[in-house]
Amino acid sequence: MSFLFDHMREVRFQLRQVLECEDLFASGVYADYSPETMDAFLETARAIAEDHYLPHYQDGDRQEPTFDGEKVSLLPEVETAWRAFADAGFLSAHHDPDHGGMNMPQVLSNACMSFFYGANLAFAAYSLLTIGAANLIRSFGSADQISRFLPPMTDGRFAGTMALTEPGQGSALSDIRTTAELQADGSYRLKGQKMFISGGDQSFTENIVHMVLARIKGAPDGVKGISLFLCPKVRVQEDGSPGARNDVKLAGLLHKMGYRHTTSTVLNFGEEGDCEAFLVGEPNRGLFYMFQMMNEARIGVGLGAAMLGVAGYHYSLNYARERQQGRLPSCKDPLSPQVALVEHADVRRLLLAQKAYSEGSLALCFYASQLVDRLEMAQNAEEKKSLLGLLDLLTPIVKSYPSDYGLEANKMAIQILGGAGYTREHPVEQYYRDNRLNPIHEGAEAIHGLDILGRKIVLDRGAALKTLLEHIARDISLAGDAGVETDICDPVMESLGLVEQVSRTLTGKMGEDIDLALANATLYLDFMGRVVIAWMWIRQARAAQEALSQASDGPESDYYKGKLQAARYFMGRELPRIELQAKTLMGFEASAFEMQDSWF
Amino acid sequence: MSFLFDHMREVRFQLRQVLECEDLFASGVYADYSPETMDAFLETARAIAEDHYLPHYQDGDRQEPTFDGEKVSLLPEVETAWRAFADAGFLSAHHDPDHGGMNMPQVLSNACMSFFYGANLAFAAYSLLTIGAANLIRSFGSADQISRFLPPMTDGRFAGTMALTEPGQGSALSDIRTTAELQADGSYRLKGQKMFISGGDQSFTENIVHMVLARIKGAPDGVKGISLFLCPKVRVQEDGSPGARNDVKLAGLLHKMGYRHTTSTVLNFGEEGDCEAFLVGEPNRGLFYMFQMMNEARIGVGLGAAMLGVAGYHYSLNYARERQQGRLPSCKDPLSPQVALVEHADVRRLLLAQKAYSEGSLALCFYASQLVDRLEMAQNAEEKKSLLGLLDLLTPIVKSYPSDYGLEANKMAIQILGGAGYTREHPVEQYYRDNRLNPIHEGAEAIHGLDILGRKIVLDRGAALKTLLEHIARDISLAGDAGVETDICDPVMESLGLVEQVSRTLTGKMGEDIDLALANATLYLDFMGRVVIAWMWIRQARAAQEALSQASDGPESDYYKGKLQAARYFMGRELPRIELQAKTLMGFEASAFEMQDSWF
Repeated sequence: MSFLFDHMREVRFQLRQVLECEDLFASGVYADYSPETMDAFLETARAIAEDHYLPHYQDGDRQEPTFDGEKVSLLPEVETAWRAFADAGFLSAHHDPDHGGMNMPQVLSNACMSFFYGANLAFAAYSLLTIGAANLIRSFGSADQISRFLPPMTDGRFAGTMALTEPGQGSALSDIRTTAELQADGSYRLKGQKMFISGGDQSFTENIVHMVLARIKGAPDGVKGISLFLCPKVRVQEDGSPGARNDVKLAGLLHKMGYRHTTSTVLNFGEEGDCEAFLVGEPNRGLFYMFQMMNEARIGVGLGAAMLGVAGYHYSLNYARERQQGRLPSCKDPLSPQVALVEHADVRRLLLAQKAYSEGSLALCFYASQLVDRLEMAQNAEEKKSLLGLLDLLTPIVKSYPSDYGLEANKMAIQILGGAGYTREHPVEQYYRDNRLNPIHEGAEAIHGLDILGRKIVLDRGAALKTLLEHIARDISLAGDAGVETDICDPVMESLGLVEQVSRTLTGKMGEDIDLALANATLYLDFMGRVVIAWMWIRQARAAQEALSQASDGPESDYYKGKLQAARYFMGRELPRIELQAKTLMGFEASAFEMQDSWF
Repeated sequence: MSFLFDHMREVRFQLRQVLECEDLFASGVYADYSPETMDAFLETARAIAEDHYLPHYQDGDRQEPTFDGEKVSLLPEVETAWRAFADAGFLSAHHDPDHGGMNMPQVLSNACMSFFYGANLAFAAYSLLTIGAANLIRSFGSADQISRFLPPMTDGRFAGTMALTEPGQGSALSDIRTTAELQADGSYRLKGQKMFISGGDQSFTENIVHMVLARIKGAPDGVKGISLFLCPKVRVQEDGSPGARNDVKLAGLLHKMGYRHTTSTVLNFGEEGDCEAFLVGEPNRGLFYMFQMMNEARIGVGLGAAMLGVAGYHYSLNYARERQQGRLPSCKDPLSPQVALVEHADVRRLLLAQKAYSEGSLALCFYASQLVDRLEMAQNAEEKKSLLGLLDLLTPIVKSYPSDYGLEANKMAIQILGGAGYTREHPVEQYYRDNRLNPIHEGAEAIHGLDILGRKIVLDRGAALKTLLEHIARDISLAGDAGVETDICDPVMESLGLVEQVSRTLTGKMGEDIDLALANATLYLDFMGRVVIAWMWIRQARAAQEALSQASDGPESDYYKGKLQAARYFMGRELPRIELQAKTLMGFEASAFEMQDSWF
């Protein structure tokens, strides 16, 4: 049995006991979702992930996609995997029935996705991108675009991508140079090159729909002149049948350190001047629209990173339990039997840290997913605004914390296996390589630091931050009521004042010297991430403490005791780091800011 | 020009201005080494590294060594590289003239090695192992062993390995099971399997001399029954000519995440009962002897890790200077030109941290190397004892800090390059993969934590720690005299009291509960490492401040300003982390210690 069985236990805990999804969904738009239907979907996801995703995770790394000048070839197994995923309805389930869906709550969709990410993130990314691209078309496309492109993207005949980055621009979206020229028939012709486009070519779907950011000729400069285009690899005729090959050419595959079975491509649009594309929504609103896909993808990246952390945690835990090595410091008898690695205090630290990082990250990704559902269920504009502010504030953390600390967790998994973990015979080194992409794509760490500090906590006079702190305070209070001990609760309560103080100091500086005020934004992101994950451990501790009083001895109560101990670890070892961070931030520590290029 | 030219500037600063080697060597055993001879050796090393090591660094990763059942093949270029290295005398230079050497000081040898490590660590490891194995034979071998094996190991015809680890034992050397049986002719026959033996097979040398730990039949249990054997791949006849193939068989190559051109092997000794080996020194003293090689290798590993950090730093610095991307937060004009990456505060942080980690690590490795020379020069037993205690205390840090933070530096180099850094078209991802081995081999982090806390600071009633603190205090005082500012000096001075307090508290616990006392040993190692690197920055700041007053404006003074700013960064951002670490250590934070296996 793979670790996905253990993960099922974890998912149920998160969805039922921490998020209390069943109560939340008892009425309203998601009332169809009973515990039984939720379990059935999760089990379907687990089984497909186990049967069709997990088996070729390592092979997909060893046999990278190839391009012979005409066709990009992946492992043959991916076709079956993709088909099984699509046939089970996972590409469409979250849509409403009018669009062929089952109105599945986002939290359940992402809980299902977690199995695929854990089993084979390097292939599962195609689904994330296809779902996100289809959602963009559903949200902002015309009736014709929806009817022509949504069905094949939700049944798996077409895949999707997001084509933002260009060679000359990197993270700076305002400098996009790809152009779009209006044609007599209302379509556009694109011209430009995009780079690092994940899933930009492959041959397991009939077609690929690129969602491309480009400038209509004559558009305003900067981000206000960017429009969104739908650009298929193969043209689609009005009746939906395939037309001619569009003028989108694969210039080449990029060869990555990991995450290898997701192609990373350089795409040339309009090399021959005939790249047909369709404007989605209004002109010059492209970046605004694309943020929907980026925000979904950010939760997806966070969840994928968390799942690599989870996978490494379970693998190294099993190894530490089986592998006998060495003795405790108190044992001086060389003839005594060796003990299991898990008996060594430092190995337990490496395991507990992995658990704290990965399951804390998982809780956050699911929490954010449920916020999407609560937005759908919101009764009034005020509630909606509050939830949206919270989701927007959390998004940079959802993307970044799991990416940074999922990677750190994978580093620890290798360390537990030692020399064995450094070989390619065990999957932990691949987890680590695959996870290294996550702090880079979908906005590098620094971008999210600037986003949270420079925008998210400032907007609407800091309303979202206030909401966040209220939510955390309420959950601490609930945890205390449930009997969670003060060594877990108190440090988080104390952190809230610090968050307020630091945030006020930093925003106060912005009018005076914006460059200095934002100089340590990446540190602020990490600081906030640590507090938010502490909150996630408060929520898990509350659920665990409540369950513990009714749990039978043995595996059930052990599971809850583990949750409480991980919370204790987090409050004892991880959260206290915010004190120095706060001091650094409020002191505007400027050694890097003041460093001169010529001094390097 | 490669970064090795920049590194030459750095090496000269470290050797001349920080370590003041020329003054030190002005008299006594190393009096032959003038500034000119030192420069000549360094330049020879740089040129060979540049011409013969650097060009195939990436190829060596892409084309891993292969084994066809008979022969292990590496890239053909390595033969020329090995020959150039040996012909220049780098395998033998540190030996005294009686052994064909030039009595080269260790600090100069390692300064030369740093070019090879930086250019191609994945190949340079063969030299490290060969030199270490030859040193063992020279130190502890019989006259016959020395005359038969030392010449071909110092002229490059033979290579060497250290064969310690076994499949069933990993880090726990006391559980070694390989046996040795005495023969009528005084030789032994080995039987057992060794694993993760670096350089355990290859075909660019005529022969490979394995230094093997094994138990003579009937020897005491545990570490007191381990002996050291010299076991050649090809037998060597009394006149030095090659004899028959010995019964050492390559069971297979291990396939690693990185560090690929150094073969990692599983070796079977005595599968056919005829593995000839020779006892080195006295029976049952093997582990004691092997510590010489391990300690040398530990400095080598630290230096290699530091050099990967240096390489990544220079690569990402060049990239950050050339690549134009985005604008500063204060710039709102989308038509203004993009700025170079290095203009962004967070990129400068990533560069300055890399500089602080890598050059701080380099300074430590050179300092430790110079301690070896000072040991040679010691005038009396007391001085020798004091220096030896200091070297022994520092060794776990020399091995671990560069490994941990060189890896961290390489992670940052990737981050600066973003998506490009994640592709295999740039070397930074390979630096990161190669460096991931360093916190594992030559004693995993946790082993060194137990070594420093459980042994090194306890021995001789803490004499070595006292010596260390005195040395640091003296250097802070010298830095102050030189005009280094208090924001650099004071934090280090304050840290000394904390080191004393933490160390006293932890050692005080050992009699009471040794398992708890050592539970956070890895954290103690990191805590001590941070203080020691702060010291290294004090020493560099002193040298830079002194030079700055006489330096001309431009590149020369910029270099020293960079040194001072890196010191400022380290004191502002890195060193302060010890406060929380001290609290955690002195509070015997026990969340991991108390965690139960069944709760995971």
